[in-house]
Amino acid sequence: MHIGFIGLGNMGAPMAHNLLKAGHQLSVFDLNAAAVENLVGAGALPVDSPTAIAQGNAELIITMLPAAAHVKGVYLGANGLIAHSRAGVMLIDCSTIDPHSAREVAKAAAEHGNPMLDAPVSGGTGGAAAGTLTFMVGGSDADFDRAQPILAAMGKNIVHCGAAGNGQVAKVANNMLLGISMIGVAEAMALGVALGMDAKTLAGVINTSSGRCWSSDTYNPFPGVLDNVPAARGYSGGFGSDLMLKDLGLATEAAKQVRQPVILGALAQQLYQSFSAQGYGGLDFSAIINQYRKDT
Amino acid sequence: MHIGFIGLGNMGAPMAHNLLKAGHQLSVFDLNAAAVENLVGAGALPVDSPTAIAQGNAELIITMLPAAAHVKGVYLGANGLIAHSRAGVMLIDCSTIDPHSAREVAKAAAEHGNPMLDAPVSGGTGGAAAGTLTFMVGGSDADFDRAQPILAAMGKNIVHCGAAGNGQVAKVANNMLLGISMIGVAEAMALGVALGMDAKTLAGVINTSSGRCWSSDTYNPFPGVLDNVPAARGYSGGFGSDLMLKDLGLATEAAKQVRQPVILGALAQQLYQSFSAQGYGGLDFSAIINQYRKDT
Repeated sequence: MHIGFIGLGNMGAPMAHNLLKAGHQLSVFDLNAAAVENLVGAGALPVDSPTAIAQGNAELIITMLPAAAHVKGVYLGANGLIAHSRAGVMLIDCSTIDPHSAREVAKAAAEHGNPMLDAPVSGGTGGAAAGTLTFMVGGSDADFDRAQPILAAMGKNIVHCGAAGNGQVAKVANNMLLGISMIGVAEAMALGVALGMDAKTLAGVINTSSGRCWSSDTYNPFPGVLDNVPAARGYSGGFGSDLMLKDLGLATEAAKQVRQPVILGALAQQLYQSFSAQGYGGLDFSAIINQYRKDT
Repeated sequence: MHIGFIGLGNMGAPMAHNLLKAGHQLSVFDLNAAAVENLVGAGALPVDSPTAIAQGNAELIITMLPAAAHVKGVYLGANGLIAHSRAGVMLIDCSTIDPHSAREVAKAAAEHGNPMLDAPVSGGTGGAAAGTLTFMVGGSDADFDRAQPILAAMGKNIVHCGAAGNGQVAKVANNMLLGISMIGVAEAMALGVALGMDAKTLAGVINTSSGRCWSSDTYNPFPGVLDNVPAARGYSGGFGSDLMLKDLGLATEAAKQVRQPVILGALAQQLYQSFSAQGYGGLDFSAIINQYRKDT
């Protein structure tokens, strides 16, 4: 299939590479010329603008952009993807943005005769490179079925979350819970150790008890409990604290729009904001435990 | 073995029954005569006071009491278990109390020549009746090994958490994390549904993603997601909100003693305090989700 791909950053570039590997023809655009060069070296065709991607022959266009402002800028308006796409061309936005903006863009696409899906991912740059991302997809059943094999070239779990915007809803809800859980594990581990318990023994109890969670049994923030996690390598790599802060900001903003209280979610947002303000936004999000330990 | 058992409440009574079933001889005491009668009907010997239990022939004495004040009252002082126990008689306190008090009592026992373990449980009244409790045990290796077969008559997982007090440390750390996780799941589920997502679909995404936790995949608070949980029966049964509030109080108090910040833990304590103040302390702790839903 001929696919247009816009946004070749840390996530978009490896995703585009996996589409090429799966045998698709790719037209690509990014503001960063070096990122475009890299994909062209692997067989993609460079295109001058998002508008030109829409005006080309792509049967499907995928975007992977930093935030809602970029998504709206690329899709909407006189130079936007929607205005210039042929009716029937499918649009898939893999960016993580607020559900309200995702629904606004999907509505404009539908009015122009373009099926659209919101399909934010989880799994990080490692999952993007390995093609093992999880896609949380919002849109109609028929559009989901049509997109599924394309998304499967970039990911392992392709989950239909309901109508337009629900991919974003699933992602912000899950990641808000993840932020809360990680801080909860950090507090529980730090408390137990401060009260005299061995960290590994405590994690063992928690992981077989009712405190069990992904942040404890798969991604424990206390150094020495697990190998092959950011806590074992000075909190490098992984999922950056500033990315967690972004997702908690989306969650609290989406909550505000529907007057939904998220009390721990809002405090988790502030705690990551404080961590980022101290200059640690580039560390993996499990490094928040350093705010709770005396010797760090 | 001849065992003394003090405290025949909702947890202690079924635990004592399981010791009788395992063939042990039991001397029992409780302030509630009906509770004593019930055990006597099953073959236990009634004794007039904790002091008399200590003065008897029990080789091992188990206590299951509501709070630290009761534990100190029963163990310490001129009429206490420790003052009247023969040297070598093992003392096991299964109450959930703060680690500091547990260590104070264990120290007094050691000075009197009595090995002592703190062994708080999780698993609730159902686990107590079925003999499937988890025991989190603090004390020496040798004492743990000696007590293990006795505890195994009442529980399934007998976990050695380290030296005296560490059973309590494991329990307060785990249950603080549990309280945080439950509120986090409540907020994430309520947010996702308020933003238009189906509760069961959202739980499915969370349970296969990084938000996965016991409070979501085993005990989900949103009605209709799981069968056989309190959310499926009006939040009756289960683990009462006032018991969660007690454990969060122990966690924040223990944290205060070692100047350990527990920011989400403290807020979780306040949220359960607010829930209890509104008259809902008798509902299962997953009912906290009702504070986040418009239609409840």
